[in-house]
Amino acid sequence: MAETRTTYFSNIPEIAYEGPQSANPYAFKYYNPQEKVGGKTMEEQLRFSVAYWHTLTQDASDPFGAGTAQRPWDHYSGMDLAKARVEAAFEFIEKIKAPFFCFHDIDIAPEGDTLRETNQNLDTIVAMIKEYMKTSETKLLWNTANMFTHPRFVSGAGTSSNADVYAHAAAKVKKGLETGKELGAENYVFWGGREGYESLLNTDMKLELDNLASFYHMAIDYAKEIGFDPQFLIEPKPKEPTTHQYDFDVATATSFLYQYGLQDHFKFNIEANHATLAGHTFEHELRTARISGMLGSVDANQGDPLLGWDTDEFPTDLYSAVLAMYEILKNDGLGRGGLNFDAKIRRGSFKPEDLFYSHIAGMDSFAVGLKVAQKMIDDRFFESIVEKRYETFNDGIGKKIREGTTSFAELEAYALDQKQIDHASGHLERIKAGINQYILSVNSL
Amino acid sequence: MAETRTTYFSNIPEIAYEGPQSANPYAFKYYNPQEKVGGKTMEEQLRFSVAYWHTLTQDASDPFGAGTAQRPWDHYSGMDLAKARVEAAFEFIEKIKAPFFCFHDIDIAPEGDTLRETNQNLDTIVAMIKEYMKTSETKLLWNTANMFTHPRFVSGAGTSSNADVYAHAAAKVKKGLETGKELGAENYVFWGGREGYESLLNTDMKLELDNLASFYHMAIDYAKEIGFDPQFLIEPKPKEPTTHQYDFDVATATSFLYQYGLQDHFKFNIEANHATLAGHTFEHELRTARISGMLGSVDANQGDPLLGWDTDEFPTDLYSAVLAMYEILKNDGLGRGGLNFDAKIRRGSFKPEDLFYSHIAGMDSFAVGLKVAQKMIDDRFFESIVEKRYETFNDGIGKKIREGTTSFAELEAYALDQKQIDHASGHLERIKAGINQYILSVNSL
Amino acid sequence: MAETRTTYFSNIPEIAYEGPQSANPYAFKYYNPQEKVGGKTMEEQLRFSVAYWHTLTQDASDPFGAGTAQRPWDHYSGMDLAKARVEAAFEFIEKIKAPFFCFHDIDIAPEGDTLRETNQNLDTIVAMIKEYMKTSETKLLWNTANMFTHPRFVSGAGTSSNADVYAHAAAKVKKGLETGKELGAENYVFWGGREGYESLLNTDMKLELDNLASFYHMAIDYAKEIGFDPQFLIEPKPKEPTTHQYDFDVATATSFLYQYGLQDHFKFNIEANHATLAGHTFEHELRTARISGMLGSVDANQGDPLLGWDTDEFPTDLYSAVLAMYEILKNDGLGRGGLNFDAKIRRGSFKPEDLFYSHIAGMDSFAVGLKVAQKMIDDRFFESIVEKRYETFNDGIGKKIREGTTSFAELEAYALDQKQIDHASGHLERIKAGINQYILSVNSL
Amino acid sequence: MAETRTTYFSNIPEIAYEGPQSANPYAFKYYNPQEKVGGKTMEEQLRFSVAYWHTLTQDASDPFGAGTAQRPWDHYSGMDLAKARVEAAFEFIEKIKAPFFCFHDIDIAPEGDTLRETNQNLDTIVAMIKEYMKTSETKLLWNTANMFTHPRFVSGAGTSSNADVYAHAAAKVKKGLETGKELGAENYVFWGGREGYESLLNTDMKLELDNLASFYHMAIDYAKEIGFDPQFLIEPKPKEPTTHQYDFDVATATSFLYQYGLQDHFKFNIEANHATLAGHTFEHELRTARISGMLGSVDANQGDPLLGWDTDEFPTDLYSAVLAMYEILKNDGLGRGGLNFDAKIRRGSFKPEDLFYSHIAGMDSFAVGLKVAQKMIDDRFFESIVEKRYETFNDGIGKKIREGTTSFAELEAYALDQKQIDHASGHLERIKAGINQYILSVNSL
Repeated sequence: MAETRTTYFSNIPEIAYEGPQSANPYAFKYYNPQEKVGGKTMEEQLRFSVAYWHTLTQDASDPFGAGTAQRPWDHYSGMDLAKARVEAAFEFIEKIKAPFFCFHDIDIAPEGDTLRETNQNLDTIVAMIKEYMKTSETKLLWNTANMFTHPRFVSGAGTSSNADVYAHAAAKVKKGLETGKELGAENYVFWGGREGYESLLNTDMKLELDNLASFYHMAIDYAKEIGFDPQFLIEPKPKEPTTHQYDFDVATATSFLYQYGLQDHFKFNIEANHATLAGHTFEHELRTARISGMLGSVDANQGDPLLGWDTDEFPTDLYSAVLAMYEILKNDGLGRGGLNFDAKIRRGSFKPEDLFYSHIAGMDSFAVGLKVAQKMIDDRFFESIVEKRYETFNDGIGKKIREGTTSFAELEAYALDQKQIDHASGHLERIKAGINQYILSVNSL
Repeated sequence: MAETRTTYFSNIPEIAYEGPQSANPYAFKYYNPQEKVGGKTMEEQLRFSVAYWHTLTQDASDPFGAGTAQRPWDHYSGMDLAKARVEAAFEFIEKIKAPFFCFHDIDIAPEGDTLRETNQNLDTIVAMIKEYMKTSETKLLWNTANMFTHPRFVSGAGTSSNADVYAHAAAKVKKGLETGKELGAENYVFWGGREGYESLLNTDMKLELDNLASFYHMAIDYAKEIGFDPQFLIEPKPKEPTTHQYDFDVATATSFLYQYGLQDHFKFNIEANHATLAGHTFEHELRTARISGMLGSVDANQGDPLLGWDTDEFPTDLYSAVLAMYEILKNDGLGRGGLNFDAKIRRGSFKPEDLFYSHIAGMDSFAVGLKVAQKMIDDRFFESIVEKRYETFNDGIGKKIREGTTSFAELEAYALDQKQIDHASGHLERIKAGINQYILSVNSL
Repeated sequence: MAETRTTYFSNIPEIAYEGPQSANPYAFKYYNPQEKVGGKTMEEQLRFSVAYWHTLTQDASDPFGAGTAQRPWDHYSGMDLAKARVEAAFEFIEKIKAPFFCFHDIDIAPEGDTLRETNQNLDTIVAMIKEYMKTSETKLLWNTANMFTHPRFVSGAGTSSNADVYAHAAAKVKKGLETGKELGAENYVFWGGREGYESLLNTDMKLELDNLASFYHMAIDYAKEIGFDPQFLIEPKPKEPTTHQYDFDVATATSFLYQYGLQDHFKFNIEANHATLAGHTFEHELRTARISGMLGSVDANQGDPLLGWDTDEFPTDLYSAVLAMYEILKNDGLGRGGLNFDAKIRRGSFKPEDLFYSHIAGMDSFAVGLKVAQKMIDDRFFESIVEKRYETFNDGIGKKIREGTTSFAELEAYALDQKQIDHASGHLERIKAGINQYILSVNSL
Repeated sequence: MAETRTTYFSNIPEIAYEGPQSANPYAFKYYNPQEKVGGKTMEEQLRFSVAYWHTLTQDASDPFGAGTAQRPWDHYSGMDLAKARVEAAFEFIEKIKAPFFCFHDIDIAPEGDTLRETNQNLDTIVAMIKEYMKTSETKLLWNTANMFTHPRFVSGAGTSSNADVYAHAAAKVKKGLETGKELGAENYVFWGGREGYESLLNTDMKLELDNLASFYHMAIDYAKEIGFDPQFLIEPKPKEPTTHQYDFDVATATSFLYQYGLQDHFKFNIEANHATLAGHTFEHELRTARISGMLGSVDANQGDPLLGWDTDEFPTDLYSAVLAMYEILKNDGLGRGGLNFDAKIRRGSFKPEDLFYSHIAGMDSFAVGLKVAQKMIDDRFFESIVEKRYETFNDGIGKKIREGTTSFAELEAYALDQKQIDHASGHLERIKAGINQYILSVNSL
């Protein structure tokens, strides 16, 4: 079928690895898909995914201005536009060599006057995508339902103040699960951009959270009912668009899951820029999820630390990439998850080729992150530091503490006449210098 | 014994209620302890508490400057200073008419060379306080152990990287529970100012959290062992002094408690300024705890929204006071908890009389908050708004959603051919204007 | 002509003053236009203005969702929509009793394919507005050119990286000055939403600032050329939409004006939410402009201190209103400026009546602010505090310092053997309690 | 005299360059003082300076805890301590191979009961330092007077509300200028940590700024009087310790200087962490100063973007180092200024060796920054991007704009019938990927 496809990026070649010295803007300098790092290929380790919404549908508008993006499919509309985007999507994803993609329902097909019509539009495009997937290596990392753009979601979806909206949202997720099953999705994501409140002054928080928990329980039940077994993922974000979002961060969502008996059914899809908006580092959120066994997938991007909103920049910060890959490698990888570029070109990067430049920038950055993190693990860089720092917990009273076999009385007896306690320095500056050395040596790895 | 006490504020009268028109700086304009609001006296509703550390020990230093506070007991040192502070404390608390006070161990007695010596100092002062309490109406709201000031706590206490420090901390909490029992404390508080990490680069987060959970379990066991039954409280704070603190906010601490089976043993002590540092409103944290049945006590203060650190200002913002009191009244009050002024005079308010001015300012603000919130509850101001806004959940499909008796299939059938959904406006601006009207009418209540 | 106008708010009455006890949502509780405060009517003191863009054109969309606003003129499009909005604008402004309004060029008329066509559209609508103004008391506070919405302004207008865009922007401001002259505008505003940079990595900051200064010089020259003498105003904002905006705050813009010899030609239009985004209070920006003689006009709104973007909420915070009105009264009023509601209804307040509720909320808040601030000035509340605090500058060495007639040698001689310096306490908590008393007594003023 | 000096770091060798592969913690990996980069030695380009206060006197305390730093001179006190610190300082500075150092007056000598006594202490230590400098290559980059630590400065120094404090401050700066002359300082710095206000509620901002301007004028006069010609530097900081500081950022201080006719007498000492607290990047502040001809010196450190206070970390972020060095190289270097490590070891890095580790980390980071920035300049990396992006200003209407020889009328004629404007993409993602390539290639430079 490929021979009959319309092409949209005909002047852009397939992106190949050329190495760190390459000056070719259409080449990878670090990402070499079949190169093995830590016993797996880079492709297997990184599991890159293209975000349909940022790459195929966003127009680079912002709250103060109309879209600037120039896209070769701009002249289409309605279902023709939807079909053109599928063609362009597969061309792009194959050229950029990402094994996965992700979408919201309305990214791929336009809404109709009723949900029934919307679903018919979806059926058409899903069939088309399924046909394309037969001859492509591209797989669906996850899909989700957009429950924030349409005005009906003004007060949320699963936490709406209006029961009709709740019903509508449930029907959308039902369709989303059917779509995921049809296309073999690995995961199903919930991002609650409007699940929260603008102001407590008119909000029944308890009712909203109760309803949201019911919503999740029904989703789990329905997936089981249709024999679909995705990894369910919650994507935390503290705010924006909603003033306060219920899935503020990993810990907040974990608290919710436990309080409603849902903790065994979910993992997290962690986005870098959402972490920083919550006042955390990206690696903090990854670590928090990892040690709870709930690190599921990653939305790879970065924010601007001086701006208070989600900038969704393509990830190029190597420090962040190294520390993220360290957490992922210590998690034995992302399992069914992946690294999805929930990242958009800057408003000033409006040309079609910028889609390629920006993905290359992100993929190369994580490739550097992977290589450096694996080298640090091989050298036991962090592990040695931690082992030394906590060594007093290896025997004696420390061992009892670690094993939970002591008591306040025993600990008091131990401490009562103790004088000076010797501490080891944390040597943080030396550690940071060491990380710089590792990063700057990546060209030799 | 009172007749032999040294007085430190001899030029300052007992503070009495004089009403909104009073120009006397040493009078309450709104706080009238025996006036009934909502069926109880204001004293019973507000349960004000004086913080020993801010009022008796802090010197108004900051990271860039030496202390400015001028205190009549400055010329004492060692145990003499500790005793003078007890005298001054009871004089102050009685004059300001707060029924409670709170302290950390090292607020009331100096540390010795060993914990044994420290405890001996504590025993002396605790005995003195107990003697004073016999002839005073002042009660102990809560006490706690300071596990952040001494250099030994550089890496935390219950989460220290050093087992000797952990043992020392345990022994301090053991003594704290004994002290609480001795003085009839209502609660025991944990604030983990150093329980967290400066950098993930040298931190074993999982081990630290495991150890912290063991610490709490031992504390619960020991209290039971000695027949002491305080309400255990965790006081969340996201950061400062530590870069990332484990008890980031109510939700984060709740997640921790559930993961370690501790959720039935704790409530929260919620501080306004800690809420805002975490990116939340004060009322958000109160609401989050309240709907989980975990609203225990309050550290009443306020921050500066333009500063990124804990300013611990005396609370004077009436909006915040009204919304906080609304949450507290809806919680049926604070139970064994209270409103503790974890607030310090500004560095430029260094005179002894500023201690009185600032407490009067805070107490009057919460008195206004109480009267306005009770009036709004009597008028069902918020309740009417919420009932109308969520009315679609009262019958039909909404009732089924609320009761958890529907399914995705039923909801889809309901939604599939639905057209326009009618929403009620949230009318937030009108609500805010209404709150202004309530507040500006307080002098008529 | 009024008898033939289409009405859009026929179910909403003219808004009249009913006093603090009124429960009528369509009445002022504090704003009483003809009541005298400080020797002038409230209408003269407050000079309220309706913002055309927020009230007539905005749809309450946000970066994650489509517009929710329901407007009675939604079914029109093109020039018909533009005309309907003029009708609705005058109906609204007259009912809400604001003496002024403000607009950007593209708020009132749609853009054509060329600037020539755009200007023709403008001419039609400006003529219509002029006709309406003949029979209305509504006056034009200021107008401006929108140089941020269209994609051509992706890199700025007067600071664009493209000379064609610069020329286009100049032509728009030229037309804007002509429009202002035609309609008798009091001021002309520059808000540089795209005048700045997204990243220094591809920016020639020096060239951009040089060009911007030339732009302003040409604007001044052209206004003089056509005999139009508005007060030119710069409206500072630190960021959003652009990452870094050149008019960061009052001080930054003042620095620019001085460096390019423009300081005598501009005053400032100060917006509350822009102040807080820059890390300042609203009153800080007002004071900074006032003491430089550059306080020109005000965009009255408020932000959410927990959100990092411009929320443009209607101003209801009474503290802020009081302190703003204090600065304005000390400035002898706003001269040719006014209080323009650069504020938008919340996304959840989407009904037409919310436009009235929100303006009433804002106008009443500033009316309270005016009454309280004037009372404080009459009582010399702040003045007494400041006089006492700085009294050492009234004679002796202090007087010499104040008058600039001393030297380091003289000051050293004075200080060399000085011991303790006596400071007066700043008593900030007592001052804040005093402000609360003033505000809570407003119903008696 | 060196042979009789007490040594404090006897177990630590002189730090030498060993190259990127070195695993020796006491070696430079990138800083090679005599290596030439851009036509000068790295020592000449970087002009590193050790900050006396962080290295010799700070104890690593924070607002919630006592100092943790372990220093070999801790057992001394008074003037003995001051002398020991001088010995340690020269040993440290020489071993770390920094050509410069900086100090506040009270860093080097303790305060006495009167300023006269303080000055006598200073004289003793200054004489000792001068003696040491005779046999050392260490030079004084700048000195300053500490006018923020002592309680007398509670309300500022040059902006104090108390004339006696103002006089005291003037006398301290007088002595500071004499000290600078005596020791051959290159610059004299003003950092106004308390020059600002805690609250406008009790502040006469106009009087304070007038007084501050007089203060600066007297300083300039006095320096001239004694024949001392340092570069005067203002170090901006937006807040902390004071809520609002007058020298908020470079632009704000520039506005002040212009308004008081001081603009020709000052340049700026720019600190990275102060820039970010003001909402700017480090490179923004450097650029702003550079294009105004006011880039004087640098306080090299870094902040934590997730914390709202000054963390003063040693600079290890290579992105920041590269962009800072780019600005400095484009400024033709720092002239009489330097790169002063206004950076402190983390509270957990309390061992003496951490002083070395942290300086090595910072010096190596800036050495990488220098090498990468010079290579980018040699390749015209940024220059090519900017030239292409602004090319429309090279001829035609653009050239007229750049030269200021056009008018609104001419620009309108040019623009009126123009259709689509062609923009070049900003390609920001590609630029960032390019910077990564440059950094990762530094080991080959």
